[in-house]
Amino acid sequence: MSPAAHLLDTPHHDGSIRYVSSPHPRRGDVVDLLVRVPHAAAVSSVHLRSTLDSEPKFTAAVTVEQTARDTWWRVPLRVHNPVMNYRFLLQGGRVGYQWLNGTGLHERDVPDAADFRMTTFPAPPAWSQEAIVYQVFPDRFARSAAADSRPLPNWAEAAAWDTPVAGRGRRAGRQFYGGDLDGIREHLDHIADLGATTIYLTPVFPARSNHRYDATTFDVVDPLLGGDEALQRLIAAAHERGLRVLGDITTNHTGVGHEWFRRAQADPDSEEREFYFFDGERYAAWLDVPSLPKLNYDSKELGRRLFDDPHGPIRRWLSGTDGFDGWRIDVANMTGRLGEQDHYAAVARRMRAAATAARADAFLVAEHCHDTSRDALGDGWHGVMNYAGFTRPLWTWLRHPEQAPDFLGLPVVVPRLGGRAVMETMREFGAQLPWATRTHSFNMAGSHDTTRVRSLVGADDAQVDVAAGLVMTMPGIPMITYGDEIGMLGAFGEDGRRPMPWGHPQTWDERIHAVYRRLIAARRAHPALSAGGLRWAYADDDVLVYLREHPEQTALVHLARLEHDVIRLPLAALPGAQAAQAAYGDPLEIDGDEVVLHADRPTVEVWTWPTNP
Amino acid sequence: MSPAAHLLDTPHHDGSIRYVSSPHPRRGDVVDLLVRVPHAAAVSSVHLRSTLDSEPKFTAAVTVEQTARDTWWRVPLRVHNPVMNYRFLLQGGRVGYQWLNGTGLHERDVPDAADFRMTTFPAPPAWSQEAIVYQVFPDRFARSAAADSRPLPNWAEAAAWDTPVAGRGRRAGRQFYGGDLDGIREHLDHIADLGATTIYLTPVFPARSNHRYDATTFDVVDPLLGGDEALQRLIAAAHERGLRVLGDITTNHTGVGHEWFRRAQADPDSEEREFYFFDGERYAAWLDVPSLPKLNYDSKELGRRLFDDPHGPIRRWLSGTDGFDGWRIDVANMTGRLGEQDHYAAVARRMRAAATAARADAFLVAEHCHDTSRDALGDGWHGVMNYAGFTRPLWTWLRHPEQAPDFLGLPVVVPRLGGRAVMETMREFGAQLPWATRTHSFNMAGSHDTTRVRSLVGADDAQVDVAAGLVMTMPGIPMITYGDEIGMLGAFGEDGRRPMPWGHPQTWDERIHAVYRRLIAARRAHPALSAGGLRWAYADDDVLVYLREHPEQTALVHLARLEHDVIRLPLAALPGAQAAQAAYGDPLEIDGDEVVLHADRPTVEVWTWPTNP
Repeated sequence: MSPAAHLLDTPHHDGSIRYVSSPHPRRGDVVDLLVRVPHAAAVSSVHLRSTLDSEPKFTAAVTVEQTARDTWWRVPLRVHNPVMNYRFLLQGGRVGYQWLNGTGLHERDVPDAADFRMTTFPAPPAWSQEAIVYQVFPDRFARSAAADSRPLPNWAEAAAWDTPVAGRGRRAGRQFYGGDLDGIREHLDHIADLGATTIYLTPVFPARSNHRYDATTFDVVDPLLGGDEALQRLIAAAHERGLRVLGDITTNHTGVGHEWFRRAQADPDSEEREFYFFDGERYAAWLDVPSLPKLNYDSKELGRRLFDDPHGPIRRWLSGTDGFDGWRIDVANMTGRLGEQDHYAAVARRMRAAATAARADAFLVAEHCHDTSRDALGDGWHGVMNYAGFTRPLWTWLRHPEQAPDFLGLPVVVPRLGGRAVMETMREFGAQLPWATRTHSFNMAGSHDTTRVRSLVGADDAQVDVAAGLVMTMPGIPMITYGDEIGMLGAFGEDGRRPMPWGHPQTWDERIHAVYRRLIAARRAHPALSAGGLRWAYADDDVLVYLREHPEQTALVHLARLEHDVIRLPLAALPGAQAAQAAYGDPLEIDGDEVVLHADRPTVEVWTWPTNP
Repeated sequence: MSPAAHLLDTPHHDGSIRYVSSPHPRRGDVVDLLVRVPHAAAVSSVHLRSTLDSEPKFTAAVTVEQTARDTWWRVPLRVHNPVMNYRFLLQGGRVGYQWLNGTGLHERDVPDAADFRMTTFPAPPAWSQEAIVYQVFPDRFARSAAADSRPLPNWAEAAAWDTPVAGRGRRAGRQFYGGDLDGIREHLDHIADLGATTIYLTPVFPARSNHRYDATTFDVVDPLLGGDEALQRLIAAAHERGLRVLGDITTNHTGVGHEWFRRAQADPDSEEREFYFFDGERYAAWLDVPSLPKLNYDSKELGRRLFDDPHGPIRRWLSGTDGFDGWRIDVANMTGRLGEQDHYAAVARRMRAAATAARADAFLVAEHCHDTSRDALGDGWHGVMNYAGFTRPLWTWLRHPEQAPDFLGLPVVVPRLGGRAVMETMREFGAQLPWATRTHSFNMAGSHDTTRVRSLVGADDAQVDVAAGLVMTMPGIPMITYGDEIGMLGAFGEDGRRPMPWGHPQTWDERIHAVYRRLIAARRAHPALSAGGLRWAYADDDVLVYLREHPEQTALVHLARLEHDVIRLPLAALPGAQAAQAAYGDPLEIDGDEVVLHADRPTVEVWTWPTNP
């Protein structure tokens, strides 16, 4: 592989407010789009290609500004359809003709899959753009004194807080540590001190497992967690500190013990029978797991109960000052889909309507592990858990060379790849999504369903910093799984669901803890990191460099998984960088007319400066 | 650019019957998929990744056959959803991990856009797979004696058959040459002699233009063309010779003179008012052209009249032995779409239902000039006019270096590109479509709306052979615009709508005519060319080489736009090639253990042999 060249001579556009005059237009609005074209790209004209009623239309751009290095072109986009896809046709360059879309420049015709997308759906709530999410698995986070007096349910096996998790096998879902909601409330200090702004709780409804994705009702909070009052206390205490709280709901299925399912199974004439897919005694279930019967959205009554009923689960738990601030939707990708049936889009839109009816600034994020291009336009969920476009490329870059992380059922080992492949993967998956969806999706190094980041990277704990650096500086909402911030291990999902070792502070990796705190603080202090665009500056095997461009502020991010050769970027391509301040790491080194980046070990560096044209 | 290597060491799958046990399964069927993996690819395992209810699922493949060169893997795909997308995960190779999808091999994660697609929609009619389509523009093809006695309509300007076409401007649509349906009937010999199997007639309904895309009614054939009886005579005569006939209908709009629109405009209370988008006096129109008011599919009555009424236009003209064999749908891509309204998919499905109700083996092909990935799954139209995936890449390869063809409103000149870019473009657009759609879409060097191929290539008429070679040997239905076969010129769409010079045989390019005849004969004689898969063997600036693999027969196609360096392919990678017969061009040259391809000028060569494993 030849040595990489910097990418700053490449024309650029993205969906951020640096390049789009109004990121949440209404139908009929005209939005101004900007394209930055370095003189080195030798472009003589720029046209917008937008698609109106599925017919391509070309509009000539005009030049609005010339800098020493770049020409800025502007072109109006009339927002005619709810989803407008668009790209740019650049005359000039090597073959005379280039398309600029979400995956970059193309010297031949390309399909629309990677077009930029502008949507007219209402914007996600403002608070979510700034969120730092801390994921809590209630059975394992913290246990209040009240937990001692609660009876053990018959499905459970009691486990003392220090017992190792069972990991795989039948016991995995039954091991019951007895963490509860008051326990979480008692440790809000820890979460707030870290800098997180939002707690995402995995399910809190009664169930027959420690993960509670098999709810037996959506109408009460599990008494084993402290019941409705404990949830109210937790949310009230969180809100008092300015923390938001997200719930977790299964719209794809219920537990086999759910009151709806029990009535449906007992009585074929029951109203709930049609909520499920019965064929005699048999019924459809999530991945054929019989404890998780699948919901059937052909049933109007199911939709009414879930979405339209003000006392139904979606609205009820979002209502009032002590309600959840939103939902994470489990198995969203399969919801409403079975064979010929596909109610997915309608369910997502009804869920959005129900949620915002109950709470105007509710936030919805979907579990969706693969290509989301048709499933996350922003009319339903605001974003997704971005496994495909973020987690997996991160893993391919930072997994230990001899480590073999188990990635959500993939039958072969995730490869270890160079930074260019990581950039291309992130860029290609990112291009599948409207910018609003991408920036309101969760960027995670892992979750309760995957290998933990500390186990992923192997011996070199400094690579955790690099992972956290990616999480905190890429477009999207950072999500941390409880315990990641203290270096908790976990070879796979179940193995990582370890009790938080409050009683063993000596096991906490306080170096990693400090890194997370400082990176989160940097993220929160710099609008470029939460709201800026994404322009790649350099990518090679062991190094990724990118810009987050915001109208007020520009950030330069330098991440290295290992030592790398010195990189020199032209200072002229980074106007304003003379005034760079370190947001994380050492001061920016400027040598004559070049910015110099070097790393002799795993490195995270972030600089910011006021944006110049 | 480094010299190209052959591509025969690349693992391969496509949607053809060489690789798929049952290309038109029903839901619930299990289809066996084959993957050919050259030993050189160093692959240790193959998994199918299919997506069920939008959840990825992996299934291990097993080896079924080893040849000297390849291992064949087989894996069952259970057809669970109406559209199944799938690809393969290959363990091994350079980074340990490769995806094989419709665009080839990828050493990093990729979205689903280029996944293979299996659909459960009923198969297109068998005859369409073998079709060679000859496009006729009725006003310009031939004029019967009866035409002399017909009055000139008031919108028209009479033109004698030898008058040059006006080309651009107001006169373009008004020049009336008076070609008619009996004229076509009188020249069926020419069409049959060429080898075409199907005539596609642009519209025959009364209108106010020579192109007749502005119908004033759908209920009668234009008396200027000879009326209903002339159409019946033409179709009867065509059917008698075994020729099929396709009509052309506008579902997106009518003419401003259409009886529906006149009633709607005259009377806001009329039943037809809701067929259009009126806003007071104003109405929506195709690209804001006021003579083409857009149809509004919110109207149930419109749908009833068009699709459900057995006497409505879609069904009526397909009915009976002397009915059309199918429709080409004008502006299909925009049909049913305006702003927030999107009835496209429903309209396409209703059209399919109406068409097949009237004629069980009706064939539907849509005008659609760009990305069709969401619009051509095969539940509505069977295929599209493949401008994006075929015509345009062909143009980028064969346009004269100094020629600047006008491509459907593109504001810059189509570039001239090398063969690798052409291959990649065809592969990427091809991958957007289910195999059944791709193979039932029209492959055209041009149409009545574009530059003609003879003008496209410039001085060197031998490049017409190369274009015709691509048209006749790629997956898809060849379509020829009347006159292309005799070298008729046309710098752009209107300019190419020249009267067929029956009276001036000395102007016919009989060399080109013979080339078309021989290539069509080769296509019709070899099932590999109509029903085989597509495996690329070699691509470089001036040369494209590919295989069409069929269970019974394999074809090797060699196309060169100019002279090129000698290409040597390993004979072992082409099992059976020792028995190759030339289907077009010179015998296959075999030198020891290599197949040798050379060209010292524009070249078309096709060889076939019985398929060995």
